[in-house]
Amino acid sequence: MIAGGKRQKFFPVAKIFLYSMKSLGKRRKEAGKMIKGFPSTLMDDIQLNITNMIRHTVRNFPEREIVYRTPQGICRYTYLDAYRRMLRLANVLKRLGVEPGDRVGVLDWNTQRHYELYYAIPGTGAVLLQMNLRISPTDLVYVANHSKARVIFLDESLLSIAEAIAPQLETVKAYVIMSDKKLSEIPTRLSPKYSYEEMLAEESAEYDWPVIDEKSAYSACYTSGTTGKPKGVYYSHRGIYLHTIVRALYEGFTCYDNFMQIVPMFHAQGWGHFQSATLVGAKIVLSGRWTVEDIGALVDLMVAEKVTFSNGAPAIFIPMLNYIQGLEEKPDLRGTRFSCGATEPPLAMMKGWKELTGAEFFHGYGATETSPLVTVNILKPSLVDKLSEEEKWELKKKQGLILSGVDLKIVDSAGQELPHDGKSVGEVLIRGPWITGSYFNDPRTKESFVEGFWKSADAAAIDPDGYLKIADRYKDLIKSGGEWISSVDLENTIMAHPGVLEAVVVGLPHPKWEERPLALVVLKEAYKNKVTPEEILDFLKPKFARWQLPDKIKFVKEIPKTSVGKFNKKEIRTAYQDEFSRPGQR
Amino acid sequence: MIAGGKRQKFFPVAKIFLYSMKSLGKRRKEAGKMIKGFPSTLMDDIQLNITNMIRHTVRNFPEREIVYRTPQGICRYTYLDAYRRMLRLANVLKRLGVEPGDRVGVLDWNTQRHYELYYAIPGTGAVLLQMNLRISPTDLVYVANHSKARVIFLDESLLSIAEAIAPQLETVKAYVIMSDKKLSEIPTRLSPKYSYEEMLAEESAEYDWPVIDEKSAYSACYTSGTTGKPKGVYYSHRGIYLHTIVRALYEGFTCYDNFMQIVPMFHAQGWGHFQSATLVGAKIVLSGRWTVEDIGALVDLMVAEKVTFSNGAPAIFIPMLNYIQGLEEKPDLRGTRFSCGATEPPLAMMKGWKELTGAEFFHGYGATETSPLVTVNILKPSLVDKLSEEEKWELKKKQGLILSGVDLKIVDSAGQELPHDGKSVGEVLIRGPWITGSYFNDPRTKESFVEGFWKSADAAAIDPDGYLKIADRYKDLIKSGGEWISSVDLENTIMAHPGVLEAVVVGLPHPKWEERPLALVVLKEAYKNKVTPEEILDFLKPKFARWQLPDKIKFVKEIPKTSVGKFNKKEIRTAYQDEFSRPGQR
Repeated sequence: MIAGGKRQKFFPVAKIFLYSMKSLGKRRKEAGKMIKGFPSTLMDDIQLNITNMIRHTVRNFPEREIVYRTPQGICRYTYLDAYRRMLRLANVLKRLGVEPGDRVGVLDWNTQRHYELYYAIPGTGAVLLQMNLRISPTDLVYVANHSKARVIFLDESLLSIAEAIAPQLETVKAYVIMSDKKLSEIPTRLSPKYSYEEMLAEESAEYDWPVIDEKSAYSACYTSGTTGKPKGVYYSHRGIYLHTIVRALYEGFTCYDNFMQIVPMFHAQGWGHFQSATLVGAKIVLSGRWTVEDIGALVDLMVAEKVTFSNGAPAIFIPMLNYIQGLEEKPDLRGTRFSCGATEPPLAMMKGWKELTGAEFFHGYGATETSPLVTVNILKPSLVDKLSEEEKWELKKKQGLILSGVDLKIVDSAGQELPHDGKSVGEVLIRGPWITGSYFNDPRTKESFVEGFWKSADAAAIDPDGYLKIADRYKDLIKSGGEWISSVDLENTIMAHPGVLEAVVVGLPHPKWEERPLALVVLKEAYKNKVTPEEILDFLKPKFARWQLPDKIKFVKEIPKTSVGKFNKKEIRTAYQDEFSRPGQR
Repeated sequence: MIAGGKRQKFFPVAKIFLYSMKSLGKRRKEAGKMIKGFPSTLMDDIQLNITNMIRHTVRNFPEREIVYRTPQGICRYTYLDAYRRMLRLANVLKRLGVEPGDRVGVLDWNTQRHYELYYAIPGTGAVLLQMNLRISPTDLVYVANHSKARVIFLDESLLSIAEAIAPQLETVKAYVIMSDKKLSEIPTRLSPKYSYEEMLAEESAEYDWPVIDEKSAYSACYTSGTTGKPKGVYYSHRGIYLHTIVRALYEGFTCYDNFMQIVPMFHAQGWGHFQSATLVGAKIVLSGRWTVEDIGALVDLMVAEKVTFSNGAPAIFIPMLNYIQGLEEKPDLRGTRFSCGATEPPLAMMKGWKELTGAEFFHGYGATETSPLVTVNILKPSLVDKLSEEEKWELKKKQGLILSGVDLKIVDSAGQELPHDGKSVGEVLIRGPWITGSYFNDPRTKESFVEGFWKSADAAAIDPDGYLKIADRYKDLIKSGGEWISSVDLENTIMAHPGVLEAVVVGLPHPKWEERPLALVVLKEAYKNKVTPEEILDFLKPKFARWQLPDKIKFVKEIPKTSVGKFNKKEIRTAYQDEFSRPGQR
């Protein structure tokens, strides 16, 4: 039986994964090849439904608080109170004629009603359509019509947005206004209109959650892509269930946490943190409606509610830190952790919080298409003694370790998987139970997937310890003489110069090197006419190889931006396309 | 659209769950009623396979150690080393002709090879059959034949067990002996025989794990019931995947843990702890072959490897504590936690460990049929300030909170759900994705399930805070004058008397009260003829109501036990059946 003589082979880790991943991709195309083993005796037909999660949390922690910030002040109720309102809400949906499978739009801040809707709408088998109130009216109309939203729930403060798009909405049959006021006191052109609170009060808290096929959609979110129309991702109950549990496990959520939701709940389900916090029975703190002017109030709420966990982008954590720097008495936030998402979290921000408050950051990576969590930056035990303090800070800038359950590879332009050497940069491809496998009813699906993997359009390297580091958007990487230059690295370094307000770097066509970097820099008022391009270049030199430095640094008044405030690199590349390729440029 | 006038209703928590559970049961019978909502776009077809868990852990933590105790001493290797051997092992299985769906028996202690088999066998699509080396040869033969095991892997030290049963095994085609010795040096009648290590050495570490339907069996375990033949539970990949993540989340596993597996891996997959520890990338410490004589060595290993988490029954933790009491220098185990399972963990044991070492116990509940975890005793935040220190110790004796994902109810003999008042005692019924829905090929399935719930045959109460407390095996509860008396509570209290070696309490037929309790007590040598039945009764009086006290206390030389060492209450009830019903007994 044993054919002797086969030689032992040892593979490095990378090889093992190269191998197994390649076949995974192949196999997805051959779905019929799935093996059916011996039948199990377990209750495998029980569906992973979002209602199970909320039901079981309320069973175990009915008394746990949900705190929410309103224009009138801080309010609080319990999981049981919220659950009773979810049951009534399910009956409201029934009365409004919402059927399983219907899409129901929500246009709201981080409110308690938004939270209730997140469980009640999918609980009935309908789909919560996340309506991003920051995108253009044109895109919002597209999202509502493309998804064929039947009902829209909206906060009274967002009436003007809803009224502006309402005439173009093709499928909406009802608007439910969320407010503490009576419906009769709210002037609006929306029709037919209903009051959330008045309807809730009329309905019974007795409702029998249906069992929903776990592969049915729970919620939908459309990308806010800078090019073209938004693309629709429809998350399944199964995907969200698994994402919620795994996120909770990796981020160490427990029932002792007091979790504050800062990330808007209208995008990528608020990163999925509040679902994980709910799963474990943590106290929930909802930040309500906030702008950068409310930073102080958010910090005060964080301190008052003894928040141990929160989420957000540097755009909110940096001004919060500024606010704290101005406080006479610094808050003690030791043990508090922040889940942060950005291409690269600023070191000054992470260190500032740590020094002033004791709070810790950990970085992650994800996208609308990925539910969103794909990586989390946790310090591996093997690195505790291996890295110096400064190296640990450097490590914290990376996106982190890939979650169990997710397959991720980086590939070159020919689709070949690249080694995990921390240097090879390629496009990030992802697959997993909470990763989208298509865009809903969208021809762009064809170009966005390859062999069962979603093409993220992000460029990254993976180091030998397994940490992912996003270098750039794949299309923004600068290809120079066969090597890659990260525009993001250059931008971040230029922006660390004290005289620089903002900076963008793009790759432009070059006759000899294929592409070379151009930097556009906006100086702060006080530094205008004082800083020279050479000075910026000198500032960069210690941190980059010579060939990575921009060929030209141009001072400009402003940098073109997209509707959501990102640098519009496409426009910049077009405007400067001949910069290096005109005769005599080099 | 709003029909006015419906009155608001508020339900207590219990009511909500009564309602939703009842309909869950009903609905399971009407499987066709599952709602299909709107299609999701996620990769919902990706199967939850055990191979994904091990692959991703090895990807993230290849360097993390697995420490294992052998007769030759403590050995260690890494996850990557283990993974390479799993790949080879998969090729060994192929060479042995093992096909997807085949059952492969394993007869082994808590060894590294057992660990490797736990991933390799199900990874190929075959089923790991857990062979409990403590059950009778007759039962072991039944298990192997009933499951139609094709191959048996066994540790060399267990050759005599395998040889004793081999002649009766009907389907086994190969015996693979696990040993550091050469096959030629191991005398055995088993045939055909193979060497684990020699076969591994011959095979390649290149193997392409198949994608397995997640509802296929991953492993099988047979109950060691005291009555009748063992019953087979076949765990699915899906069930174990979910159980592993949820267990890790509830028990707070992290990659910083050093986990020691004490519970035998041949029963209820060693309670599933080592899978959870593996999932998060914890260091694994395998206890090898141990008996009560090895207690000292286990404690020493625990200290040497800085174990932060372990599992076991009081039968092992009590002698371990005795050993520590004898040590001059007590180990510092602050931060270490023990997952313990028993009807009721002895307070003296939990307090003793806490005082001497700082280690904390948390109790759980489960069975072969439940993968096994159903409840975990964590202290809810709402109880932290509400309970006194002594009340917290009392709470720790309970089985704990029901896990998210699991539905559990207690019902009276008519099947009516009982309130969560901490007093009403009924049979525990359970359903969930990792609970068995039948026994494999066994007519006893019919009597063991009701409306989609598994009937545990355990009797318990649930207190208003949601904590389950097992009172007794349902059939051992004593029904007296319409009230229940817990035989276990009486036994535990009698055994706390300093003169008592062991005690059993059973309910016997009684003409007036239906049943009344009889206690059989074995006194310690030194106390014989010194303690009277009245003294035992006086010892019980402060802790029980008058009507709960035993009608009679009999001193006996020994208490009849079953093959696995449990009190044989069936035999006792038969032997004493006329005790209270003969004329003139009362």
